Amino acid sequence: MLYPNNIKKNYTKINNHANRGMDLEYLVEITNEYYIDHDRAYIYKKPTPIGIVKVNYALAKIEEAYFQKPSTLDYNGLYKGYYIEFDAKVTHHKTSFPLSNVSPHQIKHIEHIYKHGGIVFLLIQINDSFYVLMGSDFLKFKEEGKRQSIPLAYIIENGYEIKYNFSKGLDYLSVIDKLLEEKNEKIKIS
Amino acid sequence: MLYPNNIKKNYTKINNHANRGMDLEYLVEITNEYYIDHDRAYIYKKPTPIGIVKVNYALAKIEEAYFQKPSTLDYNGLYKGYYIEFDAKVTHHKTSFPLSNVSPHQIKHIEHIYKHGGIVFLLIQINDSFYVLMGSDFLKFKEEGKRQSIPLAYIIENGYEIKYNFSKGLDYLSVIDKLLEEKNEKIKIS
Repeated sequence: MLYPNNIKKNYTKINNHANRGMDLEYLVEITNEYYIDHDRAYIYKKPTPIGIVKVNYALAKIEEAYFQKPSTLDYNGLYKGYYIEFDAKVTHHKTSFPLSNVSPHQIKHIEHIYKHGGIVFLLIQINDSFYVLMGSDFLKFKEEGKRQSIPLAYIIENGYEIKYNFSKGLDYLSVIDKLLEEKNEKIKIS
Repeated sequence: MLYPNNIKKNYTKINNHANRGMDLEYLVEITNEYYIDHDRAYIYKKPTPIGIVKVNYALAKIEEAYFQKPSTLDYNGLYKGYYIEFDAKVTHHKTSFPLSNVSPHQIKHIEHIYKHGGIVFLLIQINDSFYVLMGSDFLKFKEEGKRQSIPLAYIIENGYEIKYNFSKGLDYLSVIDKLLEEKNEKIKIS
């Protein structure tokens, strides 16, 4: 299989850190790899945004640069012809997910994708569990503007838990399948 | 309007180079801006992939890094719920577009997007004209394997010319509209 540059880069990183275990980014990578290998979806990591300050053009070498806050979500691609984009977020809080984990630019980005008919969500690791929280439910909570953190109870009620599977990793597309099925049922009924 | 980081970065670049004129990247940016401002589509530039060699963690500063060959296409996003991805390519050849302008990783990427039902194309500037060449037509030519360059005649016959428009820039979505209409007509007929 052929992967975009940055996935390859991550694999090297993983090989250097054999004990990353339940590291969320690693689990997402093996899941995306599983999807690509099984022709199920084509979802990949975008490059990390870097602000370049100084380049030595003679050597084609970047000599000063800084990591930028991402203004989009980390992963995007295609599933059954649908546009899909998500971010993997870890919180060490046990009972809530602080909204500050998602930058204002990312929130705007989620709104844009939602408005233009894409599938967008957060894959949240909290209290040793993994949840898919759809963009619409995230935005609904955000717009209510009552709290600075999403309570775990809200995530459990509105999100979808995913169990780690040894071969598939975190099969987040199973959640998307369920939602697409419900949507198509609704279209059939109405 | 709120744009992803790298678009803002490009605008700064543009302001520093007021005479870029018909620079293709600039025209694509003003087109994407037009689409976002008019709520027509949400298409943005991905960050440039960078290979990081040395980081000063104390200063959070990248001290040695190199530009990587992109393995995906530069622009992606959403149009009418469809996944869309493309690259803007300039050739100074007058009568053909060398295939070497598209890296093997990018060709693989085009194949993946096409296979998973996305809209994928190249926006080619050649001989002072602009053409949309759909991924399927690009792959067809590539797979025939006869030539190392796509003749301009093939691009004219299989692609779609776009004229520059002062307010809209290069309205490449007009081509996509036409193709979607034809596709829907076919579905209605069959």
